[in-house]
Amino acid sequence: MRADALLTDLYELTMMEGYYRNGLIAETAVFDVFFRGNPFGGGYAVFAGLEQAASYLTGLSFSPDDIAYLDTLGIFSRGFLEHLAALRFTGSMHAFGEGSLVFPEEPVVRIEAPLGEAQLVEAALLNILNFQTLIATKASRVILAAGGRPVVEFGLRRAQGMDGALSASRAAYIGGCDGTSNLLAGRRFGIPVRGTHAHSWVMAFDDELSAFRAYAETYPDTSILLVDTYDSVESGIPNAIIVARELVDRGHRLSGIRLDSGDPSRLCRIARSMLDEAGLGYVKIVLSNDLDEYTIRDLLDSGVPVDIFGVGTRLATGHGDASLPGVYKMASLRRNGTDTPRLKISDELPKGSLPGRKNIDRWFDDHGSMMCDVVRLEGDAPGEPVDIRGNPVPTEGLHRVAEQLRPVVTDGVIVGELSTLQESRRRCQTGLAALPEACRRFDSPREYPVLLDPGLFELRLDMIASIRSGSPGDRSRRGG
Amino acid sequence: MRADALLTDLYELTMMEGYYRNGLIAETAVFDVFFRGNPFGGGYAVFAGLEQAASYLTGLSFSPDDIAYLDTLGIFSRGFLEHLAALRFTGSMHAFGEGSLVFPEEPVVRIEAPLGEAQLVEAALLNILNFQTLIATKASRVILAAGGRPVVEFGLRRAQGMDGALSASRAAYIGGCDGTSNLLAGRRFGIPVRGTHAHSWVMAFDDELSAFRAYAETYPDTSILLVDTYDSVESGIPNAIIVARELVDRGHRLSGIRLDSGDPSRLCRIARSMLDEAGLGYVKIVLSNDLDEYTIRDLLDSGVPVDIFGVGTRLATGHGDASLPGVYKMASLRRNGTDTPRLKISDELPKGSLPGRKNIDRWFDDHGSMMCDVVRLEGDAPGEPVDIRGNPVPTEGLHRVAEQLRPVVTDGVIVGELSTLQESRRRCQTGLAALPEACRRFDSPREYPVLLDPGLFELRLDMIASIRSGSPGDRSRRGG
Repeated sequence: MRADALLTDLYELTMMEGYYRNGLIAETAVFDVFFRGNPFGGGYAVFAGLEQAASYLTGLSFSPDDIAYLDTLGIFSRGFLEHLAALRFTGSMHAFGEGSLVFPEEPVVRIEAPLGEAQLVEAALLNILNFQTLIATKASRVILAAGGRPVVEFGLRRAQGMDGALSASRAAYIGGCDGTSNLLAGRRFGIPVRGTHAHSWVMAFDDELSAFRAYAETYPDTSILLVDTYDSVESGIPNAIIVARELVDRGHRLSGIRLDSGDPSRLCRIARSMLDEAGLGYVKIVLSNDLDEYTIRDLLDSGVPVDIFGVGTRLATGHGDASLPGVYKMASLRRNGTDTPRLKISDELPKGSLPGRKNIDRWFDDHGSMMCDVVRLEGDAPGEPVDIRGNPVPTEGLHRVAEQLRPVVTDGVIVGELSTLQESRRRCQTGLAALPEACRRFDSPREYPVLLDPGLFELRLDMIASIRSGSPGDRSRRGG
Repeated sequence: MRADALLTDLYELTMMEGYYRNGLIAETAVFDVFFRGNPFGGGYAVFAGLEQAASYLTGLSFSPDDIAYLDTLGIFSRGFLEHLAALRFTGSMHAFGEGSLVFPEEPVVRIEAPLGEAQLVEAALLNILNFQTLIATKASRVILAAGGRPVVEFGLRRAQGMDGALSASRAAYIGGCDGTSNLLAGRRFGIPVRGTHAHSWVMAFDDELSAFRAYAETYPDTSILLVDTYDSVESGIPNAIIVARELVDRGHRLSGIRLDSGDPSRLCRIARSMLDEAGLGYVKIVLSNDLDEYTIRDLLDSGVPVDIFGVGTRLATGHGDASLPGVYKMASLRRNGTDTPRLKISDELPKGSLPGRKNIDRWFDDHGSMMCDVVRLEGDAPGEPVDIRGNPVPTEGLHRVAEQLRPVVTDGVIVGELSTLQESRRRCQTGLAALPEACRRFDSPREYPVLLDPGLFELRLDMIASIRSGSPGDRSRRGG
């Protein structure tokens, strides 16, 4: 689903009208996308949604119908509506590669464009990036918990809308899922599709055994039989074993059984032992039913025999954190030919921002472990980084991979090739392997250091001081 | 966004292939959509999404590209793919009117169609109805808390994907919101659009006062100034007051100020008193920042002066319950020319279903209060209803509004006129007014009675007994 130009907040357009009237609309602005905390109480996020963001920016235009609708609101000038009708995104986007691990307070996307365009795209960019990043992160946690066992995303019916499902399937695959039940996601994104059958299949036949036989006849080598329509232990598993043996007689193998209700710990153990006693050690147990990273971890820690996990609602809706609080803040604005850095401070300290046109260096140790990210003003030579309080943090012995934000869109056109979904998925796996284990764990993860290059630290301090030292009349004046 | 035919789970199609091979695909099936518990721990849900569901059903078809994709999966027969290529939805849908109050375990939508079609549409129907019903319900709770004060939905940037935002705006309006920030929702659905301005507006000017003046000049009669970019009390509110007075001198009125950070209780009181002391009692206070029904109730209970609420993330994502656990279960299947009721029982008692082709009567007292819903088999004359344990519940003195499920789609075509969004919104308000207060409250709401007509109760009991009495080999045989 492609984002529509009208998929924006009214206030973006009223501000644009104001910029238009005040001669600001064409001034070059720099905005950063960043988020203020890791989702799910974890130690990282998995950046996702870049392809849709790039497609949105490069396809942006208002249709005559859009303009006609805006005209009916009675709040836009003729001149501004003509400006909108001709508007295309002419700016640039720098971003982390999709699937990269990213951290709070560092820019993950940088937009540089005429102020009107940069303002317009805020809401859709945040919508796309916040959600896919949330779900890719959730998926990566489920994958970590599953310890190498395949995880299939099953979230379509409980996802938040159609795109909630489709984007979730994509992001879950980047985060490490092995497939999706969603056929549209399969076709659009090339994600492997997986499935079993529903209770209704069993209910369509006169009895469960006939239903299982008919399914196994249809798919003799790939059937996964859902055994809990009536009673898993008394009926479903025994009937599945009958069918599995009949398949053996015909030279086939039942692929698996699925449990979707009841006490998973008890039922998986019983199923495994019944299957094993019947000589069906190869028949896999697929478990679904409100799973997430915590239930999967607990089941596996207790030695419950599960081969494949089907994870739906809690993955596709990001259970625990329904949204990533990503924001979009102005970092610089050209006035009278000069780029002036911009800073937001606030009644609440955490709601600030970092000024200027920035990029990020990522530092690694000799073993390839990620050690810290450093946010640096473009053009500054790297100095000794400091934490947010100004304490220096040594980087001796580490090596630097500079400029994690790479150009994705330049002059309104996608530059180079975007990562394939497979590449983004691998980037996530590589990142997780490089992230110190203490930052990966679910409980009280260690905070990954996001540091400031000294030039940025000084600029920020100067600007805060300048804003704070003003009298009430002009305390809102900014430095730079 | 229109649902695509491929927006379904793989297993729906593998089951259809099986039905096709087993001569079941054209047998008439009845499926019910129902949910098992009210969201948010509340006492009701607001049914929404019907228009999109009807549009999905009546527009359903596979494109040649869809069929080509399915062919690449290598699991579908040529005959079945040809069947799919020609498939349209030829069945019927009965449903509650949009905006109706609905309750756990009662069918809210009934699909009757050839088994293949009825199976295919499961995932998309649930996706559409689950999410919009969730958000309409959430919105109705926020509206109840706001006690008549306008509530504007601001959720686009934090919603779960683009359709997560768009559908949320629609459902929130049905639930009682007064407008949305989302322009696309405004254009598509005719919802009033509302907005203020962002921090970036202030940051685009040399100081906050200049920014406020410029905005007020652009919109002299509708400006709502965001006062927390630097410091609400020391800078933002004083500057807004300066601008409000300048507007008065020019014959205009500042519409409001918006607070988006800090302690809302303290800041709203200070803002109100500063505005009032400046003779600006008419300037409204708009509050945003992670609001939901609980924070709004608590603020208003404490007498905090707020005029308008902007509710974003927690409304658009259904904070507290990211999904409505709506399900889709077979209730009847025609075999050899006879409709045979179907029932799912399960290892978990709550995961059962109600058999047969059913409708719902809603009973009211003389004061127009809703007293109970009764699920009844079509064709049965109404008897004395019973609760789920079989205890009779008298309905003397009550009057019955029969057959809440009305035909929406017949023979694959929408019949009559769907409710307009305004009508659905009014239906929700009417329903909330008729629902006993004890069922509306947030904490420990009274359970609204959903009863069974005696004929349905007997059928269900007989079928459970028949399934349970079977030997393990055929205990899955069903009654009916």
